[in-house]
Parts: sequence; structure tokens; C-alpha cells
Amino acid sequence: MKDFITTNGYDMPPSEFRKFGHQLIDWIADYMENIEKYPVLSMAEPGEIKTKLPPSPPEKGEPFNNIFEDVEKIILPGITHWNHPKFMAYFNSTSSGPGILGELLSAAFNVNGMIWQTSPAATELEHVVLDWLRQMLNLPEDFWGIIYDTASISTLHAIAAAKTEAEDKYKENFEVSKLCVYFSEHAHSSVEKAARFLGVKNIRKIPVDEDFRMIPDKLEEAVNNDFGKKLIPFCVIATVGTTSTTSIDPVEEISTICNSKNIWLHVDAAYGGTAAIVPEMRYILNGCENAGSFVVNPHKWLFTPIDLSAFYIKKPDLLKKTFSLVHEYLKTEKDNAVVNYMDYGIQLGRRFRALKLWFIIRYFGKEGLANIIREHIRISNKFAELIEAHPGFEKMAPNPFALVCFRAKMPDKTQQEINKLNETLLHAINATGKSFLSHTKLNGDYVLRLSVNGIHTQERHMLETWELIKHTLETILKEQI
Amino acid sequence: MKDFITTNGYDMPPSEFRKFGHQLIDWIADYMENIEKYPVLSMAEPGEIKTKLPPSPPEKGEPFNNIFEDVEKIILPGITHWNHPKFMAYFNSTSSGPGILGELLSAAFNVNGMIWQTSPAATELEHVVLDWLRQMLNLPEDFWGIIYDTASISTLHAIAAAKTEAEDKYKENFEVSKLCVYFSEHAHSSVEKAARFLGVKNIRKIPVDEDFRMIPDKLEEAVNNDFGKKLIPFCVIATVGTTSTTSIDPVEEISTICNSKNIWLHVDAAYGGTAAIVPEMRYILNGCENAGSFVVNPHKWLFTPIDLSAFYIKKPDLLKKTFSLVHEYLKTEKDNAVVNYMDYGIQLGRRFRALKLWFIIRYFGKEGLANIIREHIRISNKFAELIEAHPGFEKMAPNPFALVCFRAKMPDKTQQEINKLNETLLHAINATGKSFLSHTKLNGDYVLRLSVNGIHTQERHMLETWELIKHTLETILKEQI
Repeated sequence: MKDFITTNGYDMPPSEFRKFGHQLIDWIADYMENIEKYPVLSMAEPGEIKTKLPPSPPEKGEPFNNIFEDVEKIILPGITHWNHPKFMAYFNSTSSGPGILGELLSAAFNVNGMIWQTSPAATELEHVVLDWLRQMLNLPEDFWGIIYDTASISTLHAIAAAKTEAEDKYKENFEVSKLCVYFSEHAHSSVEKAARFLGVKNIRKIPVDEDFRMIPDKLEEAVNNDFGKKLIPFCVIATVGTTSTTSIDPVEEISTICNSKNIWLHVDAAYGGTAAIVPEMRYILNGCENAGSFVVNPHKWLFTPIDLSAFYIKKPDLLKKTFSLVHEYLKTEKDNAVVNYMDYGIQLGRRFRALKLWFIIRYFGKEGLANIIREHIRISNKFAELIEAHPGFEKMAPNPFALVCFRAKMPDKTQQEINKLNETLLHAINATGKSFLSHTKLNGDYVLRLSVNGIHTQERHMLETWELIKHTLETILKEQI
Repeated sequence: MKDFITTNGYDMPPSEFRKFGHQLIDWIADYMENIEKYPVLSMAEPGEIKTKLPPSPPEKGEPFNNIFEDVEKIILPGITHWNHPKFMAYFNSTSSGPGILGELLSAAFNVNGMIWQTSPAATELEHVVLDWLRQMLNLPEDFWGIIYDTASISTLHAIAAAKTEAEDKYKENFEVSKLCVYFSEHAHSSVEKAARFLGVKNIRKIPVDEDFRMIPDKLEEAVNNDFGKKLIPFCVIATVGTTSTTSIDPVEEISTICNSKNIWLHVDAAYGGTAAIVPEMRYILNGCENAGSFVVNPHKWLFTPIDLSAFYIKKPDLLKKTFSLVHEYLKTEKDNAVVNYMDYGIQLGRRFRALKLWFIIRYFGKEGLANIIREHIRISNKFAELIEAHPGFEKMAPNPFALVCFRAKMPDKTQQEINKLNETLLHAINATGKSFLSHTKLNGDYVLRLSVNGIHTQERHMLETWELIKHTLETILKEQI
């Protein structure tokens, strides 16, 4: 029995941890330096990785070197490289050096910050770092913050808090089946998922204007209509930086409607929010001070390893009312003097996520982070100019942040033919492994999306991608003749 | 603007990453080697850490060394050391060398495994590793697996799937207000939280026997009673290894009731499940093959950095039905050939968690993991024997796993006095910083809990803690005279 006991209990001996730790750090540094040599999008076929892995677990332990060889041989070809400077699909959330080191330290401490006592530093650093972020975004002091894993969970908590408030307000007239929630058709899928999950049946998708922004008059109309039917309009979700086009709902006007009708406003700024760190971009959050809750994801555009979603709420007691349920084994002497974050969410287990964000804010500073985001916006604006100046392409939506929606133009073709061409174009670009873009549909049009928000992406990567796009289109058009 | 561009885009330069990475690996190795020098429970007072941190974020970036100095100076005193071999509170989930390295690599790749295409290896490794774990637990092949963050979320998904099934089954007779859920009063708080969250109003807490196990007859009675009232009994949660005492609900008998009444059975084996890797412990999962869903947390007793919760379900299509909502920008050509895990859960963003579990299973092997768990059980059994053999203490519950509930005995005192004494004893032990225990209440009795499931915990740590317990009690009793 005792042969597996080392100086480190039953764990990997420290000498081995040191050796393989150094090896892995060097491997990661090399990987980052050589990242452009890899195809951005994994070229694996469905099932290919799986067939290379043994169907059953090993009976005996293996030397760490074997595992590491398989990372290179089996895993690496199945990785789509989010770190690649030409990953321009979706929102390219990248990590960063200080973020990776923060995550490493957090995995080593491995504290569960469910209550204050289980690591006071985890709770108090979370409090401080979220307040730093709040200040960086110039949001009001009554925004109380908590870290969840994803925006999906943050939004779920927002709608749950709104529901609890409605229950308090409507008392015996409250019925889940009467609840109505409002968001634009461009809101993130997680918003509808969360509302449905909470049993909300009346989901009102408010039309958008030609720039894909919610139309406040249509919202007001829908709300009045539901009040007229004796239903309960309880929550509106506005988006700052929608996923398809990064459009910005008119939060200020929406908040006026919500406040006058006493409806909870939640702002989903998961992607767009961090841009407000750039002083000249702060306008994007105008009106957010009137919201009941707000989410921004540092793991999207603040170079924080996934996952870290920052959620702010003005009435945290509603979360506590919704979620607090404390069993005896979690009670401590200090409960009256401290915040136990587990009381404010569905998850009891809580990783020490604040550490990596603290590393990042300190290493780059507010100014450094603003510089990177500003540069991303500049690069994407330049791409938009190239698109607009080229006769073969057209821009398909405004680009307030660092994402451009565009497509290849074909004057004499049907919508179906143009869509087909652009779909072919996207797949052909991605198949080269040189750049990775994604797509969306806008009013039935198949549209390509180019997003510049990875920390490794510089102007030359955008320019090389632009050449690739033009060249690929030419090749396709030649083949079609 | 360009002065912040390095060879690594706008990120920390690779040379710096290398330097500080090596430094951090050495720091962690030293920390692990010296872990016993730290007080287990942080001695910080509420607010102490916070006051040492600047109230506002830095304008300019800082050298990484400064940040690192503050980790030692400010953060470390606020850490409760979950890695300490005498952290015997709660369930002492510890990380492990290979787990930390897996988390490091996963933070470096930083892929979001929301769909197959965004990293085929993340999806396919998750599939393979969860199947390995299923085989290690000897669970049936029709258990389909997915990784969530925490057992709270796994259980939430189980109850949501059960609800969707009930909706399908009861059709127009379905009403959320009719739903009834059943679990023992010893089930984890997350179970009740999840049920309430999903709008379930009829929460039936089934009584337990003298060993804190759900009484099947009482369950059947409650179910029949609810059917009689035209309500909808839709979900039972049985626990294998409850949080207070690690009692095991009689899953086999419970599953017979559930199957005959067509009620969803979810088994919460978050803590206890991994013990089934030890062949002679496999009995603890008897009957689980009949469950509709099952959760086990490798981050609890399989040395995996928090968080990683493994969820198994026989009808994954119910999850898809509950959660799938795919916007255009996430559609790919491969959707029919692959699993896109985002369709099976509330969270869109998904970390590459399978990597660390793969590292752990390969490094230790099935046998190695079984050896560690078996040793934990042996150590805790020995502690239970010491308690039972000592006239000043008594064991307060059976100890089927690696946790012992006990208290100091006082023959001629009232329950209140005995409770007070044991509370004083616990706080006095924890205040030494030498060991960290937690408590619970059983039938009104204040009871101490000693859990042996950290990877660094060896027999001598239990023996030293036992001496500390006896010595502390003696001191308290002397002072009281």
C-alpha cells in the first residue's frame, strides 16, 4: 500500500511536478510563439480524435511524458486555436499570459469560495476586483457585483431576481403563467433559454430597426398590450453588443420605459461592456446606470481565461431571497459579519476566479487594457473601410465595436445565389486553415463576420485575412465561369 | 500606440511568460512541500484582506513581480489551505499535480467547447473520458455523460429533464403547480434550491431511519398520497454519501418504487460516487443502474481541480429538448455528424474540463486512484475505532466512506450543555490552525465531522489531529472546573 506515498502524500512528487511544470510552461511559451504555424480551425473529421483514444481507462498509472506526447499527437490536431491571431470567428475570446498564470495559481490553491471562511481572500478579492471593474466601466456605486461562470448563468440569475421581485409585488395575483419577458430578436440565445427555463411562457421578441437595435416604441406597445391583458410584464433585456452584429439597443430610452412601468431592466453587455474602459467608447453604456442588473464577461474581451462572467445587481437581497438555503454544516460564527457568496447563486461550489482578473488588471493597468481594445476597434474600422472601398464587397451592418458584418456582392444574382456564394466563400476561407471567420443571417442574407478581439491579433493579421478573402473569392468566381 | 506590441501581439512577451511561469511552478512546488507550515484555516478577520487592497484599479500596468509579492503578502494570509493534509472539514476536495498541469494547459488553449467545431478535441475527449469514468464506476452503457461545473448545476439539469418528461407525459393535465419532488431531509441544499428554482412548490422531505437513510416505505406513502390528490409526483432524488454523515439512501428499493410509479430517479453521488472505483466499495452504487440520471464530482474525491461535475443521463434527448435553441451564428456543416454539447445545458460557454480529468486518470491509473481512496477509507475507519475506544467520545453516525461524525461525551449534562461544549471544542481546534474540522447537527445534537479525502492526507495527519482533539478537550474541561 505504502509504495504510492511520496513526500507529497499520494500526489505526484514535488520533484516531478517541478520538472513537468517547467516543461509545460516552456511548451506553452513555444506554442504561443509558433501559434501562426497551426491551422486556425482544426482540420479533424468528426470522430477522428475519439478513434485515436483507447476505449477504456488505463489500469496502471502512466509516466507523465506519455500523456504529454499524446497531447501533441492526439489532442493538438483536434484543437481549434482560439489563441491564433487570425481566429476572427464568433467573439474571439483569448486568454493572456497573466490570465494563464492566475488560473494556474488558482488551480494550485484549489479553494472553494462557497463561504467566506473557506477562503477569506477569495471572497474579499472578488469584492474588490469587481469594484475595480465597475469603476473602470464608470458604473454607479450601487452596482453590487458577483462572479459567475458564464453570461448564460448571469442572465439566468437576473431573470430569477426579476421574477422574485414580481412575486413580492403582485403577491396573490402573481402567477408564473402571467409573466412576460421582452428582448429583441437579436438578443443572445441564452436569454430565451433562461426565460423558458424559469417557466416564463410569454416571450415577446421586439422588432429592431434597420441597424438591428430594439425599437423602444415597439417595446412600449408590447408592454401596454400585455398590461391590458392583465398579464405581468416583469423583465426587459437590452443588449449592448449583440452577437450577430454588435448592435447596441437604445438602453437610455428602454430604461425610461422600464422605470415608468416598474419593470426590471437587465443589460446584457457580455461582449460589448468592456469597451467602455476606453474613454471615448464609454457612451455605449449610457443609460445602464438605470438598469436593475448588468452582465459583462471579462472572458470575452478582457483577456481572461474562460470562464469569468461579472454580474452586477442593485438589489442583491433579491438573489439571496431566491437562492439562500443554508444547511447547518455551512453555518459559521462569522456569518453576520461577512458575505457568503453561495447565498447569491444557484452554484454552491465556487472557483477562485477573481485571482486571474486581478492579475490581468494589475499587469496591463486600466490604460493598457484600454489601449488594446482601442487598437482592436481601429483595426476593425480599417477592415470596414477596405470592404466599403471594394466594389466586390459590401458591409452589412454598422460596426460600433470590433466586428464587421460583410458579404461578397453580386449585382445580377438572386438572394439565394448570393447566399450560396457567401456560404461557399466562408467554407473555402476556413478550409485553408489560415484564418477563421464565422457567419450569421441578417434579414435572410447570409453574412460573414470578422471579429478582432483576440489579444494576439494585430493589423497585419487583418490585412492578411483581407487578402485571403479577396483571393478566395476570385478563385471561386473563376471556377464558376 | 505601438509600444505595447510584443512578439506576442499585445500579450505578455513569451520571455516574460517563461520567466514568471517557471517562478510560479517553483513557488507552487515549494508551497506544496511546505504546506504543513501554514495554518489550515485562514486566521484573517472579516475585512482584513480587503483593507490591504487599493480601492481603485491601477492606471498603468505593473511588473509581474509586484503582483506576485502581493500574492504572498496579502492573498496568502487569507487562504484557507484546502491542500493542507489536516484540512478535514466539509468534503476536503483537493487538486493534484496532474490536475493542476491539466488546468494550466486548458487555460493556455482557452478553447470554448460550445460546439464540436470550436475544438473537436474538447468534445471528443469529454465523451471518451466520461465513458472511462463510467466504466470505472461500473455503470451501464446507456448512461450518456456530459461535464457541468458543479453538482448544483448537474442536479438542476436532472430535475429540468424530469420536468420536461412530465410535461410530455401529462400533456394538457400538466401544471407546474402540481409537480411533487421527493428527497430526504439529508439531501444536499442544492437539491431543494434547484427544485424551487424550477418552480416546484410541493417539496416532500422523506424521513430517514436511525442511520440517516431515506425510508422507502415513507417515500411510497408520500407518493401515493400525492397521486391520490391528483398531483404529479415526477422526481425522486436519492443520495449516495449525504453531506452531513455520508449516509447512503437505499437506492435499489427506491428505484423499484420509482420504476413502478414511472417517476424519474436522480442519484446524487457527488461525493460518494468515486468510491465505487474501489472494487470492494462498488456495492454503494447498487441500484443506480435503474436511475434516470446520476451525478458524481471528480472535483470532490478524484483529485481534480474545482470545477468538474460528471452528469450521466439515460435520455439525453430530454436535455436537448429542454435547452436546445440554436442561433444561426452557431450552425455548422457538421451539426448532423457531431454532438454539440451546448445543446444539452443551460451554459453556452464551456471550458475544456475533460483535459485535467484525462491527465489524472492516466497519471494515477484506475488502480492508483482506487488505492488512494481505499487508504482514505482505512484511515477514517481507524479514526472511528479510536473514537469508539475512548471513553470521552462517541461516534454519532455510521461511516461507510471516509468521514466520521463524533462528539465529546458528557454523561451527566443536558443536550444544550453537550452541544455548547462541542461547539467550543470545534472552534478551539480550528483556532489552533493545526487542523480544520467542520460540524453538523444530527437530531439536534451538535456533531463534529472529520473527513479524510485530501490527496495529501496520510495516517499520521489523522493521528496528530486525534491528539489535538483529545488535548483540546482536556484543556477546555480543565478551564471549566
